[in-house]
Amino acid sequence: MERSEDSFHSIVGRFPCQVHWGDCDPAGIIFYPTYFRWMDSATWAFLESVGYGPKRMRAEHLAMPLVSAKCDFLAPAEQGDRCEVRSRISKFGGKSFVVAHDILRSDGAELAKGIETRVWGRFSAGPGTPMKGEAIPETLKALFVQK
Amino acid sequence: MERSEDSFHSIVGRFPCQVHWGDCDPAGIIFYPTYFRWMDSATWAFLESVGYGPKRMRAEHLAMPLVSAKCDFLAPAEQGDRCEVRSRISKFGGKSFVVAHDILRSDGAELAKGIETRVWGRFSAGPGTPMKGEAIPETLKALFVQK
Amino acid sequence: MERSEDSFHSIVGRFPCQVHWGDCDPAGIIFYPTYFRWMDSATWAFLESVGYGPKRMRAEHLAMPLVSAKCDFLAPAEQGDRCEVRSRISKFGGKSFVVAHDILRSDGAELAKGIETRVWGRFSAGPGTPMKGEAIPETLKALFVQK
Amino acid sequence: MERSEDSFHSIVGRFPCQVHWGDCDPAGIIFYPTYFRWMDSATWAFLESVGYGPKRMRAEHLAMPLVSAKCDFLAPAEQGDRCEVRSRISKFGGKSFVVAHDILRSDGAELAKGIETRVWGRFSAGPGTPMKGEAIPETLKALFVQK
Repeated sequence: MERSEDSFHSIVGRFPCQVHWGDCDPAGIIFYPTYFRWMDSATWAFLESVGYGPKRMRAEHLAMPLVSAKCDFLAPAEQGDRCEVRSRISKFGGKSFVVAHDILRSDGAELAKGIETRVWGRFSAGPGTPMKGEAIPETLKALFVQK
Repeated sequence: MERSEDSFHSIVGRFPCQVHWGDCDPAGIIFYPTYFRWMDSATWAFLESVGYGPKRMRAEHLAMPLVSAKCDFLAPAEQGDRCEVRSRISKFGGKSFVVAHDILRSDGAELAKGIETRVWGRFSAGPGTPMKGEAIPETLKALFVQK
Repeated sequence: MERSEDSFHSIVGRFPCQVHWGDCDPAGIIFYPTYFRWMDSATWAFLESVGYGPKRMRAEHLAMPLVSAKCDFLAPAEQGDRCEVRSRISKFGGKSFVVAHDILRSDGAELAKGIETRVWGRFSAGPGTPMKGEAIPETLKALFVQK
Repeated sequence: MERSEDSFHSIVGRFPCQVHWGDCDPAGIIFYPTYFRWMDSATWAFLESVGYGPKRMRAEHLAMPLVSAKCDFLAPAEQGDRCEVRSRISKFGGKSFVVAHDILRSDGAELAKGIETRVWGRFSAGPGTPMKGEAIPETLKALFVQK
């Protein structure tokens, strides 16, 4: 799963999902912003898998806003397709990190490959208040290291 | 525009919208939850038209959560259709109110008719904190009276 | 699960789902059209469970457009909540049918109760072409009878 | 508006949009897939502005599926913000083309910059049937040339 450009040896998160009727457009295939919705959900699930679930993120006023996102669409997906988003941390910077996502159909076909660049931040006083990036704790990084 | 069941003589809000590619499903027509997204946006725009815009709602910790929503779908809408949601207050209760929406295509065709029942509430300390319903101010009701 | 107003003794479909970050609004709770997206997906999954999956529906040019939809919102849902939509056929008419949905959180809390009224129809020549309602086959109805 | 990397001197399309309550997440800012929904709608509107509207695209079995999409998020947008997507063709290839989008708030602030790479294609027999890329007609390219 590791790619040559990765600078971090990451565990792999797995987020199951399915293409629903309303996720598809009149061409009968997935409407592309759906992949970005999935990648966002996959990142949240990935964080949860190492102990940073939604409730903790909220309680500690943590946030992870996007700097950029991209996706290559490799094959069309149709209603009913069962898929999995496989996520890795491809890079940890000081205050930012990069999540690489591979989206596979249940038969193994690669549907899409995406990248999210995010900042690790904290709200001054809960969601909706001003947010500042802060150094990603080494203890957090360690949770993602593949042993 | 007034319906026989209305208990309040309301002004009419107008929210323009359009059916986009991604709002449609593989049948080539609007995916029905889109109408509920429009009704929600139309209600916010209706409130803004009487001085209760998003910034004020946020600053005063106001909210208007849903109790129920329904919609009758009268004719299918297609990509590119330009539409308008016409909204009225059909009833003001003590802490709740009902918004009736008529969704029309630019040629006058009635596409859908919906109803939202909402509570008027206030967050204890901003979005995300506990919220309580409170009496709808008479001054607010007065802003919606058609003269 | 059966309600007094049901005129059909239905099996119960179960559609698992979860509240994601992007399904929530600035109030920190589920944005209500999400429930309608879930109900639509739950109905498709319910049909699939009796042998009418997306591929068959497409191949046979079958459709099930909405006549109306409503939902009562009983308790707010938050990011991370794992839920289940339990679906029953509450009524079969000649060309239309009613699906009743109960949306429960994993701790058993009732979040929402919804109703979809749909027509059973067929495209003249595949999705996007004109669609006509047709009599619901007795063999289809029989697949939903709880024994 | 032209960027140094552009290989085509394009007219500029303008697609007005607004950040709605349901487009925002619990952080109180726009949920990022919304930008991709806007870019898709902006591309359709851009095509329509040169005579290739939804009805014509459908009638001629034309499609423009995505190869890739990316977006840099420059500043957060909030509910109520009125925005405009400014779109240009930054490159025409043989069967593919690149649309560059700048998303601005009404006060001129740059919110996001995105790129879509798309194929020009045709369904064998209408939406839902197999689709093949085909050479972009020179007459179509000419419609986008800024004079």
